[in-house]
Amino acid sequence: MEQEKFLNITVKTDIYNGITIDLHYIPDEIRSELTVDSFDTIIKDALKLWIENGRRCIWFKVPSRLSHLISVLIKHGFEFHHAKSNFVMLVKWIPNEETRIPKFAHTTIGVGGLVYDPVIKKVLLIQEKNSRVKMWKFPGGYSESGEDIGDTAIREVKEETGIECTLKSIISFRHNHTGIFGCSDFYFVCLLVPAKQSKIETCQIEIDDCQWFPLDEARQHLCGFNLYVFEEFLRQYSFIDYCNEFKDSSGMTIKTEIIHSQYGPFKRDERVYSVRKSEQ
Amino acid sequence: MEQEKFLNITVKTDIYNGITIDLHYIPDEIRSELTVDSFDTIIKDALKLWIENGRRCIWFKVPSRLSHLISVLIKHGFEFHHAKSNFVMLVKWIPNEETRIPKFAHTTIGVGGLVYDPVIKKVLLIQEKNSRVKMWKFPGGYSESGEDIGDTAIREVKEETGIECTLKSIISFRHNHTGIFGCSDFYFVCLLVPAKQSKIETCQIEIDDCQWFPLDEARQHLCGFNLYVFEEFLRQYSFIDYCNEFKDSSGMTIKTEIIHSQYGPFKRDERVYSVRKSEQ
Repeated sequence: MEQEKFLNITVKTDIYNGITIDLHYIPDEIRSELTVDSFDTIIKDALKLWIENGRRCIWFKVPSRLSHLISVLIKHGFEFHHAKSNFVMLVKWIPNEETRIPKFAHTTIGVGGLVYDPVIKKVLLIQEKNSRVKMWKFPGGYSESGEDIGDTAIREVKEETGIECTLKSIISFRHNHTGIFGCSDFYFVCLLVPAKQSKIETCQIEIDDCQWFPLDEARQHLCGFNLYVFEEFLRQYSFIDYCNEFKDSSGMTIKTEIIHSQYGPFKRDERVYSVRKSEQ
Repeated sequence: MEQEKFLNITVKTDIYNGITIDLHYIPDEIRSELTVDSFDTIIKDALKLWIENGRRCIWFKVPSRLSHLISVLIKHGFEFHHAKSNFVMLVKWIPNEETRIPKFAHTTIGVGGLVYDPVIKKVLLIQEKNSRVKMWKFPGGYSESGEDIGDTAIREVKEETGIECTLKSIISFRHNHTGIFGCSDFYFVCLLVPAKQSKIETCQIEIDDCQWFPLDEARQHLCGFNLYVFEEFLRQYSFIDYCNEFKDSSGMTIKTEIIHSQYGPFKRDERVYSVRKSEQ
């Protein structure tokens, strides 16, 4: 069966009877002759055909260099769906019923590191530049694309404080709906331990101060969610000597592991997070 | 001090010495006379001034109806940042150093519901339409914008199966980097219990089959991450009668609560998730 083409670009079909056209692949000889007016006629005719053929959803990926064509798609009822630095994705839902187009991501992921050095029995805290309130807190920041939770914590602690760490567990997490760009936000705090003896070297752009504190002193310096997490840490890791009120120590934390999953004929490794003993 | 204006739109400044201009607020009398050519000259002159004034980052929010202006911004070195249905956000980083522009969200959030009815001692499983492999699994789906984890589970279970539930805890979660639109994905599975006696009414569009299963039968039907979560549930809720191999039952799960946080002069309520006793 011959593959469907649009402006000589191979059209990608999906199981929902939708199609995706990536204008990045438009051949040079067609692109050089394409004007806003000729594209307008092409879209008008193509839409007629797609509707006749029962297509439900049309996606157009428009690279930056063809951004003058976006207004044509908007004119024909396309809406923006998402964008990355060098393209924008537009979509048009055809059926006369509520759209079933999956929404793009609307949640940012941040990770902090509660770094505890069991040799000196101290916790690493920082003060940020550019913060509304001067306070001590755990180092941390946003996840990069494709990064696991523990890897973000380790990277951010290294960037902000110079200390190289390994992951022990996730102590707690927070979910709010007041993040940047109108997004929701998850903030995980991981327990990390130093991987080797290393000196504090703060990031000059982001960090004002960074120090190791004994547990009782750290606790006095912390506030808000950071304080909550610190007390969870004391509970999960049974620091009853320091805090008598945590006699009901749980001794359990959140740990990550890879499981080998089978789904019918498909196998895959999956990173999962569950409640586990904290001393493991 | 007089507020900075651009095309008579009030310019929003931020603490990083950046500015945001929302073209939605362009006055009608200016918009009606604006052409691609005149906008090109305006942007050229404005950029010169912004650079002289030491601006670090320029944001333009362009509504759909002004999409013909996007190509002018691209020409002057702007990049796409993110888009929602009716606008696209473009950004230009001015300093001659690595960009420090925060990235947009790149993680979708999905939630499943392990519905256990303690009266009939059964678990609710579904089979989806449109899935590559026919298998029994927990009902669930993507979070809507602004939704808490438990609320997504409750909504999706109601939509897919008709059963109204309340949240008990989060059993486990998975993190992968192979989601739709090139996103990463979190998938949380919540333990839910029916809120009242209700009959199964499946969603005709999404669901092929939905049934209550005894624990041992459910376990035989499940695979992959769903099976892993089910065994975590048996462990966390100490079902040692059913599964002898779970004698090392932890009796702990992940629960959510609201904490009242104080950050200097600022107070706020925050939704947090931590390890707690499962019988609570």
